[in-house]
Amino acid sequence: MTTRRFSGLLCPVVTPFCDDLAPDGELLAAQCRWLLSQHSGLAVFGTNSEANSLSVDEKLDLLDTLVDCGIDPERLMPGTGCCALTDTVRLTRRAVELGCGGVLMLPPFYYKHVSDEGLWRSFAEIIDRVGDARLQIYLYHIPPVSQVPLTLPLIERLVREFPDTIAGIKDSSGDWANTAALLERQWDDFRVFCGSEAFLLPTMRAGGAGCISATANINPAAIHDLYANWQADDAKERQHALNDLRDLVQVLPMIPALKSVVAHFSGVTRWRNVRPPLVALTDAQRDGLITSLAGEGFDMPGLPGGG
Amino acid sequence: MTTRRFSGLLCPVVTPFCDDLAPDGELLAAQCRWLLSQHSGLAVFGTNSEANSLSVDEKLDLLDTLVDCGIDPERLMPGTGCCALTDTVRLTRRAVELGCGGVLMLPPFYYKHVSDEGLWRSFAEIIDRVGDARLQIYLYHIPPVSQVPLTLPLIERLVREFPDTIAGIKDSSGDWANTAALLERQWDDFRVFCGSEAFLLPTMRAGGAGCISATANINPAAIHDLYANWQADDAKERQHALNDLRDLVQVLPMIPALKSVVAHFSGVTRWRNVRPPLVALTDAQRDGLITSLAGEGFDMPGLPGGG
Repeated sequence: MTTRRFSGLLCPVVTPFCDDLAPDGELLAAQCRWLLSQHSGLAVFGTNSEANSLSVDEKLDLLDTLVDCGIDPERLMPGTGCCALTDTVRLTRRAVELGCGGVLMLPPFYYKHVSDEGLWRSFAEIIDRVGDARLQIYLYHIPPVSQVPLTLPLIERLVREFPDTIAGIKDSSGDWANTAALLERQWDDFRVFCGSEAFLLPTMRAGGAGCISATANINPAAIHDLYANWQADDAKERQHALNDLRDLVQVLPMIPALKSVVAHFSGVTRWRNVRPPLVALTDAQRDGLITSLAGEGFDMPGLPGGG
Repeated sequence: MTTRRFSGLLCPVVTPFCDDLAPDGELLAAQCRWLLSQHSGLAVFGTNSEANSLSVDEKLDLLDTLVDCGIDPERLMPGTGCCALTDTVRLTRRAVELGCGGVLMLPPFYYKHVSDEGLWRSFAEIIDRVGDARLQIYLYHIPPVSQVPLTLPLIERLVREFPDTIAGIKDSSGDWANTAALLERQWDDFRVFCGSEAFLLPTMRAGGAGCISATANINPAAIHDLYANWQADDAKERQHALNDLRDLVQVLPMIPALKSVVAHFSGVTRWRNVRPPLVALTDAQRDGLITSLAGEGFDMPGLPGGG
């Protein structure tokens, strides 16, 4: 296989909704273009994209729109893991057909306490049904949300059985010991991404590939800078600066907070919209957040305005 | 409103899959006819139906097939709650159009630790979008699986705001104190169903409506008998007998176990098929279960064979 695998920073791009809560594909495409200009890849349809509040048809439409709008599919790593095997296969197949560089795949997440054998069969069946050698799967381990962890023995079995397809993992466990254990394995060209830039420096020092983090929606250039300069003398200071910014945001519900920041700096108020069961920030929460960010001299230059 | 609400026993009907894991709608319809003959209503697309391993299109097709095959829609309470608002609306709307007596609705279950306000908006938006006075929603509280509980204040707010639509609840918390608290509320014509027949007698004694239980797939007549005779002198003995049978099954993974029993007594081996991430019982597990049931004189008379 000569497929290129991802490295660096990828952003689980927040999804814009019109006031009737329909996805706004063109605004998403404009946001993706801006993120690419900030050296971020595009992990669309992630947790922070409210991907699981979108139907499969809505995701297929958005993916088509992104490619139609000229977004380079090689920079796209859409989330395609659904509860239903047939949904995951449908979405993954389209991503491959469109030339996406990879997919980020949740395990089926409704049934809990399922066996490694059952999860293995799920991934194996998906790979078999998609049936395309171009498929590059990045596993998505996010037990605080999915409540369905991917264990090391399961991951190892998948890597050994499908070395050309299982390309890496996003570890959003928040548990550095787990990320470290994955990094220690050093499977051939298996890419380990931390799920928060708070772990970026230790991830790079241990041979990791980069990070896929919510905060990339608002702070991509600085996160990429640390990725590109992790061996620089000031790397630790850069890490601290990233953490300080993240701390301002993550005291609030993350997705509404990120959308409020994008809305403020773009002037496009519909960015504030979220689908239930999420709730937008209150005015007070929003004002407090923007004031805090302004106090740090934070800005998002070049962010696209509304159409 | 003159809409009739459900009471008695309903079964979260297991979903048959062909060997390629496609749903077998005609076999499901035959099974539903048998369940109706055993005095069980049809809570198709429940947790034990592997509903969340089916796409929305697959569920729509199955629902159409059931009605086409002559199943009385008034006896159907399909599960329609998905992660995505648009999926829930689509499936619920069709259920109402087909004349289903009600729907059993999970909250959106991917995002965890969401607020009551967010869940309220989710249900309110669904009710608004379906926009049909015939809609009868039975809330589905199953925190061990969904990991998204429905709190008493949320339920009370929904009942007060939508008294003609919020028809009842299935409480699969496994926590009798929660079921008892719901029963104490005595909201006008709000139907409380326990999620396991192990709680059927206390539920009936406290004014409940009945139960919606996985084990109804294999033991419907006996569970219905206790429902119909909960004031009889031997009610306690009937409850014990139900519990003894349930205990034989629930030491194994519930869904594969139920499917193995149906496969054995119908002679239709494809009933054993499950979709990943579930795994069918091993031969040893299956033989042990059937032997245990035979030792209790268990049978499933009249079960339909394969087409």
